[in-house]
Amino acid sequence: MPSPSQSIAIDFDKIRAAHQRIRAHIHRTPVLTSERLNEASPAAAGLFFKCENFQKIGAFKARGATNAVFALDDPTARRGVATHSSGNHGAAVARAAKLRGIAAHIVMPSNSAKVKVRAVEGYGAHVVFCEQTEKAREEKCAEVIKKTGATLIHSFENEHVIAGQGTAAVELLEDIPDLDIVMCPVGGGGLLSGTAIAAKLMRPKIKVIAVEPANADDAAQSFRAGRRIVTEKKFTIADGLRTNVGEPNFAIIQRYVDDIVTVSEEAIVSAMRTMWETMKIVIEPSAAVPYAAVQEGKIDVADNRVGIILTGGNVDLDALPWMTMR
Amino acid sequence: MPSPSQSIAIDFDKIRAAHQRIRAHIHRTPVLTSERLNEASPAAAGLFFKCENFQKIGAFKARGATNAVFALDDPTARRGVATHSSGNHGAAVARAAKLRGIAAHIVMPSNSAKVKVRAVEGYGAHVVFCEQTEKAREEKCAEVIKKTGATLIHSFENEHVIAGQGTAAVELLEDIPDLDIVMCPVGGGGLLSGTAIAAKLMRPKIKVIAVEPANADDAAQSFRAGRRIVTEKKFTIADGLRTNVGEPNFAIIQRYVDDIVTVSEEAIVSAMRTMWETMKIVIEPSAAVPYAAVQEGKIDVADNRVGIILTGGNVDLDALPWMTMR
Repeated sequence: MPSPSQSIAIDFDKIRAAHQRIRAHIHRTPVLTSERLNEASPAAAGLFFKCENFQKIGAFKARGATNAVFALDDPTARRGVATHSSGNHGAAVARAAKLRGIAAHIVMPSNSAKVKVRAVEGYGAHVVFCEQTEKAREEKCAEVIKKTGATLIHSFENEHVIAGQGTAAVELLEDIPDLDIVMCPVGGGGLLSGTAIAAKLMRPKIKVIAVEPANADDAAQSFRAGRRIVTEKKFTIADGLRTNVGEPNFAIIQRYVDDIVTVSEEAIVSAMRTMWETMKIVIEPSAAVPYAAVQEGKIDVADNRVGIILTGGNVDLDALPWMTMR
Repeated sequence: MPSPSQSIAIDFDKIRAAHQRIRAHIHRTPVLTSERLNEASPAAAGLFFKCENFQKIGAFKARGATNAVFALDDPTARRGVATHSSGNHGAAVARAAKLRGIAAHIVMPSNSAKVKVRAVEGYGAHVVFCEQTEKAREEKCAEVIKKTGATLIHSFENEHVIAGQGTAAVELLEDIPDLDIVMCPVGGGGLLSGTAIAAKLMRPKIKVIAVEPANADDAAQSFRAGRRIVTEKKFTIADGLRTNVGEPNFAIIQRYVDDIVTVSEEAIVSAMRTMWETMKIVIEPSAAVPYAAVQEGKIDVADNRVGIILTGGNVDLDALPWMTMR
């Protein structure tokens, strides 16, 4: 598999172009507020939640994948697309390929939840199973690409994916232009790098703050060290955030992000439950991570209007964290 | 306690007046659609969900209670209000009384969930505990009223409550004017009677269809018999719908409602889970009852645009039905 480029240059025009390209294929998700959550954080001047849990395939990943698939020229597209993902990105690539009428090969670990496999297959994609290691996933994906001529749509180390993910922040700032802070979680850094570029170019004085589970804090460590550090991960309930931050993503993060803070597992579960109970919305653990930092007082929100990107709502209703953690 | 009047006359002006009166104190809740749920019911021309789970106190009950409390003249209001309720109506009356700056006495069974008691107390209301029977609740409430001079705000046998509940259908039809069917669950019949009046007067050719758990089917039995039948209830997970339909409510239902169908417990749980998973919203079991009838094919929706009022989203996240029913 070709190594992803170390540096990706994205300007605001690329994000605007992404928004134009994907607009017809994604939801413009609502921005919700909650009087109760505002009362629970009286220092803040207001919390604004961009509900990507209501997005197609149940997560923001629909944005980047759709942009990347539709940005391909026709001859390239006809050879199909491939990716490796056990989660939302696989479903997002499968759906985008179906919309474009091309083949998609999704490499998934053989122990993937059946519901996730069925979701990908439901879009007509070809599922290829592999061992559970990152290395096995990458090798199997490279093998598929070699055989089929498909184009790799990496879940975060991809210019068009990053530009697509940035469109959530564009919509958030179009709806609530006077935000002082925008927050999102960080895993591989696709959403964070896109969000940071979009937010800083639309509103230079905005602060971009990322939040990461303490049990998977490679981005926070890297940010403080000033160089990308790859770490061994402890278990985190925020399964979307177990990945190490990508190299091109980290370069963007260093340039545009103001801070990266971490939260405990207990804080994530508490934030998730609070949001289900008060906002009556289903969000996945990864999506609760930024609010966990607000709830725990990990960032200074005094007198600030805070935008939070809720990344997704795909959860196993038979294994909610407040059951399994007891 | 004075017996509620046997007949309540409500015209559309009363519902419009209710809407004006409560507008500043409630949310205009969104109407959501789901491509996936539409695909799952291909015969229907579209399903439109009025999301009262996002309403203040997490349920449509905020509408009726607010209207009834704000409709009182000042001398009457100053003596306070009282009701008996173990659920959303108690919280709704408590909140409305707080907004108006008057006392509220909420009679609750002594085995009420602590979270519900705390919610009522959180609005500054005076909680009075009683035995668990309907009779004990009514007697205790009458005692409180005799002592305090408070006005009873009955949860469904009350003109202003019915008119207030009808405002959800007003908003739904303002947003989606060309509905062919409007559906809601029926318990005491406050929501159903208000919905039926509003819908038929705004759009005479609309069909109003109510849905009831088969385990608490007094309204369906009454509707078929042409007279109000009070039944002994079996357990139903739809705890908001265990009540017998009220007398004035039934008179309105006989005049304006087209059909009442019933659904099984399994269908309610399945519908609830489907909606959580596909729409990413938290709804309570009672709110899932109408969609359960659609999912089970209990009503003919062919080529119809169907509006469904999702009544509320207050659930115990530690005791979700797909856990407790296993």
